[in-house]
Amino acid sequence: MFEDRRLYDGAAGRQTPADQATVRRSNLGLVLRHLRDAGPRSRARIAQDTGLNKATVSSLVAELADRRLVTTGDVDRAGSVGRPGLTVHLDGRGVCGIGVELNVDYIAILVLDLRGEVLVERRVPLDVHDLGAEATLDEVARLVGKGQAAAAERGAVPVGVTVAVPGLVRSADGVATYAPNIGWHDVPVLDGLRARVDFDGAIRVENDANLSAIAEWAMGPEARTPDLVYLTGEVGVGGGLIVDGRLLRGAGGLSGEVGHTALGDPELVCGCGRRGCWETVVGLTALLRAAADPDDPVHDPNRDLETRLAEIAARADAGDRRTLDALQQVGTELGSGAAVLINVFNPQVVLLGGYFAVLGRFLTEPMAAELRARVFGPDLAGARIVLSTLGFTAAVRGGAHVALESVFDDPTLVPATGGDGASPAIGS
Amino acid sequence: MFEDRRLYDGAAGRQTPADQATVRRSNLGLVLRHLRDAGPRSRARIAQDTGLNKATVSSLVAELADRRLVTTGDVDRAGSVGRPGLTVHLDGRGVCGIGVELNVDYIAILVLDLRGEVLVERRVPLDVHDLGAEATLDEVARLVGKGQAAAAERGAVPVGVTVAVPGLVRSADGVATYAPNIGWHDVPVLDGLRARVDFDGAIRVENDANLSAIAEWAMGPEARTPDLVYLTGEVGVGGGLIVDGRLLRGAGGLSGEVGHTALGDPELVCGCGRRGCWETVVGLTALLRAAADPDDPVHDPNRDLETRLAEIAARADAGDRRTLDALQQVGTELGSGAAVLINVFNPQVVLLGGYFAVLGRFLTEPMAAELRARVFGPDLAGARIVLSTLGFTAAVRGGAHVALESVFDDPTLVPATGGDGASPAIGS
Repeated sequence: MFEDRRLYDGAAGRQTPADQATVRRSNLGLVLRHLRDAGPRSRARIAQDTGLNKATVSSLVAELADRRLVTTGDVDRAGSVGRPGLTVHLDGRGVCGIGVELNVDYIAILVLDLRGEVLVERRVPLDVHDLGAEATLDEVARLVGKGQAAAAERGAVPVGVTVAVPGLVRSADGVATYAPNIGWHDVPVLDGLRARVDFDGAIRVENDANLSAIAEWAMGPEARTPDLVYLTGEVGVGGGLIVDGRLLRGAGGLSGEVGHTALGDPELVCGCGRRGCWETVVGLTALLRAAADPDDPVHDPNRDLETRLAEIAARADAGDRRTLDALQQVGTELGSGAAVLINVFNPQVVLLGGYFAVLGRFLTEPMAAELRARVFGPDLAGARIVLSTLGFTAAVRGGAHVALESVFDDPTLVPATGGDGASPAIGS
Repeated sequence: MFEDRRLYDGAAGRQTPADQATVRRSNLGLVLRHLRDAGPRSRARIAQDTGLNKATVSSLVAELADRRLVTTGDVDRAGSVGRPGLTVHLDGRGVCGIGVELNVDYIAILVLDLRGEVLVERRVPLDVHDLGAEATLDEVARLVGKGQAAAAERGAVPVGVTVAVPGLVRSADGVATYAPNIGWHDVPVLDGLRARVDFDGAIRVENDANLSAIAEWAMGPEARTPDLVYLTGEVGVGGGLIVDGRLLRGAGGLSGEVGHTALGDPELVCGCGRRGCWETVVGLTALLRAAADPDDPVHDPNRDLETRLAEIAARADAGDRRTLDALQQVGTELGSGAAVLINVFNPQVVLLGGYFAVLGRFLTEPMAAELRARVFGPDLAGARIVLSTLGFTAAVRGGAHVALESVFDDPTLVPATGGDGASPAIGS
């Protein structure tokens, strides 16, 4: 297999040989993705936008309709030359992707259909560290089963499941190699789930921050920002990096590990055994410890996280000095570490997720002050600090999105109805 | 213009509409690049490797030969099916690319022909900071003129000039926006050279570490490593990052600024005015200060850098305690900062250039020890530490390589001879 790699000026397209069937699948995906990203439009407009000829577009649209991925309706007059054509809409209510997250103190599921509509969303408090891997995977499998059932009630068949894990993941075989905040070492998440769930489609396992970054890129407030650094704070601190419109995965899928990187106080010892980890100064535990005595109810992991964060915000709004100082300190440390990432990556946007977003209005000012002192390029090298609006759903949304991408890569994965309207049965 | 962006699983090719002439240029480039990267081979083999059909390959090779970019000769028997064919070789002795570097205490030039042969290489000591921008650009222009003349003597016409600058560069208009080690702010390098040199081809201005990383990727000991962090030490410390086979440029071309990033002792004040810059603990000045008293001749910037570094190495080999301690300290600090980059990028290789390579045998052991303590993934997340063999020529080689890339992108830039063997006259 020949690969044309080029480094400098990546503008020119790669060229690889392709057979007819591959070209057809690729063109089906091209049209489907374009309808998702650019919105409903006529066949003529699709031809104009994509450079495909009109006859090809008509044939592709017919096939997508037969697979129930698009519908036609309404007359499109905007931008059309000659007589108006029927508008083609992305449909795909019959297929869905499932995102699952397991985190330190909860597991969550979210099911998206092909149009990006949320069909199912659930979140279950769970002490994953204490429960251990096997029992946690039992719970995750149960949640996936519930998600499948709820999706089926809506007439949607899942094409894939993606599991978000708070730690290092070897994507190739879906093993969580190292996730210190939940105490996991080399847990075979993919095999464990495969044995537990009644699903023969694709199951993927990914780092949670990477999936969150994908969600932000696909559907967040700064969607399609080519160069984006996503930082999320919970008990752990994660990073997802998007470079030139693509997730930076690294050689072994281990990129973006900012939480256990020496961006913090070099003397502080982290739970992972290292010194100076950023997590020790910007993680949720660091904030809570600075803001409240050990017996303060905001520390209680059995209480809902958003309620506890709302309490912190209320105290800050009431002018509580200790709370304000703690937030100021975390904001400064956020800026100190983020400056390194800005100097190295030069992103357009640093996007804050997780608790950083919930308490963002108290964090961004000290963060920006520190950034101004530390970023080498002028005006933060053009970077803006933005708060995510996806909240704690980013990882599950990213997981569902990734599961659905396989349909956009190859719409023929969804069986044709042959016009009989029968429900599709989707395998791997 | 429609762009098909996809984030997750970048394996599938992008699809963009293309006219006949664009396809022809792209295929000419494809064949030319393949001959460079994979070596001489028959037309049949090229067809097999690239997926182009044989008739197309024959026509492309004929056109490349007419442009004197390839020659045919010798019979190729290896891997051929049916009767052997004449081997096609990359030629291109008639075209060359020019790389120029301006650094703190020297300017340098290197001219490569299309085959990667060095036609000209020169290095002139110069105190760029004291001389100022205008006089330095005069010197650079003079050096380019000499390079052009020397290349012409070898029968090679330059297709482009790339200038390496040790600081932030706005590539779009070739302005060196901020280069503290030479005291430059907003110097219009491109316009300044355009006015001074007799050359109407492409002139580009780039960050020196980025160009060095490109050279390493194209022709260094770890060529074609998809994920590579290149670190170079001189008076300044630079970083060039290659992600999935492409140079990471960042939103404004300001990426890789590791030297003035807070990866060092947080208390140390840098020449740039910030605290904690990595340069203050791993730059050449930090090493020399730790290794020798102020009046020691190794500090003398008027002496050749390689001689001074050889002296440091000789002292270390002789067991001089102070020298060994200084190298140990720099190696440890190199590891401390590189651990951050490994955690964030997860590269296959961290490649050390500049003085880090020259003194590498003293630096890598303490560096690796620190990395083992700090990198989050197992076994340095798979990263290897490698010393560059391109030495201080990396930036100029990268510059020449970039200049030549325009020919591989579009071989029709080189005029056809029409079989009369006349020298090509190459414009922009």
